[in-house]
Amino acid sequence: MKRNILLRLAFDGTGYAGWQRQKDRPTIQAIIEDKLAIMTNGPLILHGVGRTDAGVHALGMTASFATDADIPCGGFLHGLNSMLPEAIRILAVEEKEPEFHARINARGKVYVYQLLVGGICPPTQRLYHHHVKHALRIAPMRECLTILAGRHDFACFEATGSRDRNYTGGRGAVRTIFTAELTVGAGEPLPLSFTISGDGFLRHMVRNIIGTLLEVGSGRMSVGGFRAVLAGKDRTAAGPTAPARGLFLKEVFY
Amino acid sequence: MKRNILLRLAFDGTGYAGWQRQKDRPTIQAIIEDKLAIMTNGPLILHGVGRTDAGVHALGMTASFATDADIPCGGFLHGLNSMLPEAIRILAVEEKEPEFHARINARGKVYVYQLLVGGICPPTQRLYHHHVKHALRIAPMRECLTILAGRHDFACFEATGSRDRNYTGGRGAVRTIFTAELTVGAGEPLPLSFTISGDGFLRHMVRNIIGTLLEVGSGRMSVGGFRAVLAGKDRTAAGPTAPARGLFLKEVFY
Repeated sequence: MKRNILLRLAFDGTGYAGWQRQKDRPTIQAIIEDKLAIMTNGPLILHGVGRTDAGVHALGMTASFATDADIPCGGFLHGLNSMLPEAIRILAVEEKEPEFHARINARGKVYVYQLLVGGICPPTQRLYHHHVKHALRIAPMRECLTILAGRHDFACFEATGSRDRNYTGGRGAVRTIFTAELTVGAGEPLPLSFTISGDGFLRHMVRNIIGTLLEVGSGRMSVGGFRAVLAGKDRTAAGPTAPARGLFLKEVFY
Repeated sequence: MKRNILLRLAFDGTGYAGWQRQKDRPTIQAIIEDKLAIMTNGPLILHGVGRTDAGVHALGMTASFATDADIPCGGFLHGLNSMLPEAIRILAVEEKEPEFHARINARGKVYVYQLLVGGICPPTQRLYHHHVKHALRIAPMRECLTILAGRHDFACFEATGSRDRNYTGGRGAVRTIFTAELTVGAGEPLPLSFTISGDGFLRHMVRNIIGTLLEVGSGRMSVGGFRAVLAGKDRTAAGPTAPARGLFLKEVFY
């Protein structure tokens, strides 16, 4: 029986074409798999908890792989970090039971979306925030967050043409949002941070939720309109997809 | 008489070879000068408050230029920001008296140096912090900061072979540090932030101060040793130059 290893990792998605291996573009999965293949002396598959889009960041992504290699967890941690670019860091390595799988066993994820509102976007923050030039109304956005919480069919926030439903064991677009919060900082530009946790997320779901919340914050959509979008299950009724740069996969629960 | 315009600007120094125009590498000065030349329909010289090293960031750098162009300050602000890369932002534009010069008239500058201590450096913070793996002793570093404050000959912290003394009206390496403070955050890695303000800074001075403070924080140099380095005016006795990525020119006073 092979060993089953779980990685917790962080990355700066700026220069990468997302998680999933692609033929011609650098991806997080491909880079780590290639280093693991060197360490374990053979190809292997690294199963991510999900696929992140190009430009999305991670503070605590997870991925697992099976191996025969006799390398202790600490060896994987230090070995990988010495070979990987600084934009990708392994935070922890854990031995799991043989049947464990990073995606299938995940019980929940926490995403954070960072915005800067008004003024001029500080260059040293531009890669990690979406900058919105005009003021946003906080109260109606918070009201929408309370609507989001709970078990819903989130088809309206699923990427058009997404095949995600095929991947998720027949539950369609139904997911449960555990918490959805908005933290408001201070200063100009004003930092806003959305934190959304749930048992699973459809493709582009967080970015589409944020894009629609920004419609509400900008006054282009009412809270009632937001409620109707969710009930209507129609992607074309929701707002645009917010930019990847503001999104962080913060944590995965098992 | 030409108009005299002061720019306040911020930039992410990561991808640039510093402030000063160079033949073959992208620099902040060259990029802004080129855009100004387009706007004002003729070449001009943009005088920075100083030259920043490759990789150093700015939250509030200043630079001035003389022009005959009849463009209002707001026109320069919006025109430049529409043409410049997002890594460079003009924050404010001000009309100054004809004899004003961004460097000569500066009364002081504030630098910030950001460190992360221990643990693993989060990829999304790596471009803006120097990561130190081992713990640092805070109290002796703070003691050294009180030694730095005041008027001293800072030859020990001047870049080797620097011609800075020729530029500064005969005051040699004598500068006055107004304030030197260390703020300690929370978490792992532990964020440390040094803020140093003074009437002028020699080439590499802040980075050499930080590099020497890290010797003290690491226990490789005593507070007495630090005092002796300053008194000895010998660059070779001081610590190494800390990496550029942690340094921010925060503000310039006139």
